[in-house]
Amino acid sequence: MQITILGGGGFLGRKLANRLAKDGSLGGQAITGLTLFDLASPPAPEARFPVRCIGGDVADPAAVAAAIPAGTAVVFHLAAVVSAAAEADFDLGIKVNLHGTLAVLQACRALGTRPRVVFTSSVASFGGGQDAVVPDDGRQLPTNSYGAQKAIGELLLQDATRKGFLDAVNIRLPTVMVRPGRPNKAASSFVSAIIREPLLGLSTDCPVPPEFAVWICSPRSAMEWFLHAATMDTAALGADRGINPPGRSATVGKMLGALEAVAGPAARAKVGFVFDREVYDIVAGWPAAFAATRARRLGFAEQESLEDLVRAFIEDDLAATRAERGL
Amino acid sequence: MQITILGGGGFLGRKLANRLAKDGSLGGQAITGLTLFDLASPPAPEARFPVRCIGGDVADPAAVAAAIPAGTAVVFHLAAVVSAAAEADFDLGIKVNLHGTLAVLQACRALGTRPRVVFTSSVASFGGGQDAVVPDDGRQLPTNSYGAQKAIGELLLQDATRKGFLDAVNIRLPTVMVRPGRPNKAASSFVSAIIREPLLGLSTDCPVPPEFAVWICSPRSAMEWFLHAATMDTAALGADRGINPPGRSATVGKMLGALEAVAGPAARAKVGFVFDREVYDIVAGWPAAFAATRARRLGFAEQESLEDLVRAFIEDDLAATRAERGL
Repeated sequence: MQITILGGGGFLGRKLANRLAKDGSLGGQAITGLTLFDLASPPAPEARFPVRCIGGDVADPAAVAAAIPAGTAVVFHLAAVVSAAAEADFDLGIKVNLHGTLAVLQACRALGTRPRVVFTSSVASFGGGQDAVVPDDGRQLPTNSYGAQKAIGELLLQDATRKGFLDAVNIRLPTVMVRPGRPNKAASSFVSAIIREPLLGLSTDCPVPPEFAVWICSPRSAMEWFLHAATMDTAALGADRGINPPGRSATVGKMLGALEAVAGPAARAKVGFVFDREVYDIVAGWPAAFAATRARRLGFAEQESLEDLVRAFIEDDLAATRAERGL
Repeated sequence: MQITILGGGGFLGRKLANRLAKDGSLGGQAITGLTLFDLASPPAPEARFPVRCIGGDVADPAAVAAAIPAGTAVVFHLAAVVSAAAEADFDLGIKVNLHGTLAVLQACRALGTRPRVVFTSSVASFGGGQDAVVPDDGRQLPTNSYGAQKAIGELLLQDATRKGFLDAVNIRLPTVMVRPGRPNKAASSFVSAIIREPLLGLSTDCPVPPEFAVWICSPRSAMEWFLHAATMDTAALGADRGINPPGRSATVGKMLGALEAVAGPAARAKVGFVFDREVYDIVAGWPAAFAATRARRLGFAEQESLEDLVRAFIEDDLAATRAERGL
């Protein structure tokens, strides 16, 4: 089984590549080759199968076609310009998030073998804000360009599925926490920072108040969902290829409570509150809760507790983050 | 006030151009210029103001920019590849319906003056089929490429509105009946044919059964909605730029009843029933009814009766259709 990860150099892409390398198989089938594609050629994990690493632009149809060779059974399309960056540079967002997904569609279509495509859409494709509990058939009324472009990507891949060009599962990822590394241009960067920075011994300012709620998931849950989406029987999805996975609704206060439970009051005391209007205006539009009944019925795994999520970051990513940042 | 009609050579585009020429003003402001743009340069109506007619490809950014000169206050974006054609040629649909709308977005954005954009989306952007009554916040889950591309166009123009590039009103047009001319590549072509052909003395086959219901509107209603969308206070729309206008849900049987009431049993007897799977598979996915409460509250005019609609076709379009077809 040949697999491609577009955005294979990003946080989730690298985790996924490592997981596939470790497992050596997907859905009971041996992996025979893995292609990792990102703007800069991604690092290759050690694996029993060949790993190709390619640098290129996801909006370049030829580059994307080269990353999805004949025989590719599964494409993970994680390549994207994130929320605050797409908001700051509209044309860049359109290029990567829209034209990139069009290039993926055409490359998969050209194979003629209807590959599975696991596409990371986002909670940001919904509006509604703090009071919303999005039902399974909830409407995507995005309040930011990133979310609009993700909703467009879903429509493209869903229609391509109906046409028989490919077989898409569009996962509307919650805000993933805890991300390693440094704060990035995602408007939701603070959700990870308020856990990660204190665990690194660093102070950080939270741009939203403690009662602000976020629909979150862990990197471990995201991995389980990706693998399930890649191997599930998609007949159960019917025409509707969008999945609202079972994340967790948590306030900043609850997150800090979990941090304190795991790492003590000194860690929690590292987090201050400095309101940031620009960040708030983006994230305030995102819904803070989903029903996610359909995803549960379709076998998408339940999210672990906030304490377990903090412990998982310490186990999986804290040392590497410390090393990467020279701390 | 300068106005542009993209798709100005089509049925609705020509009706709109004629209406603007006759009125001489829009929303109380004198029209100072009208640009009509279509694949082939459209015919100019007689008007008190200058009319420019341009032939070009709506997917060509330079051509579209030329059609939307500085000072343009209102753009009617009616240019599209219709349903069955977009289904038959996926790439053509993407080119015209997606890249075309992107070109319109960028041309309007380049003006820097936030023009009003009235975009014709479609009932085909919704799924649900015969049993659906689409609520005002109903989700667009299209079952055809045309509908998917229209939903994408809406997302683009809605986000561009939020960004302040333009000021969009996206009208999800019902199936417009009665269209003049000949049967065309729209899957819903039969909805007009079963009224028009008998009134021309011609026989026609209906590809769906008499109990099949369609969400319809008249060309007269569509014109009223376009003008209202061009002049309304869009502050009342908020972030949600999609309008489900108050069309009418009618079965084929009811339509033929109206034909008989206006033109007698001989006209009705011209319509036979020959089931067409290809047409049925497209139109069966479209919802047959909408709540349309929000549009009514926002001042969009109510649809006239089916009998009035048949009479309007006889008054407005029958003679021209007869002449055009050499009957």
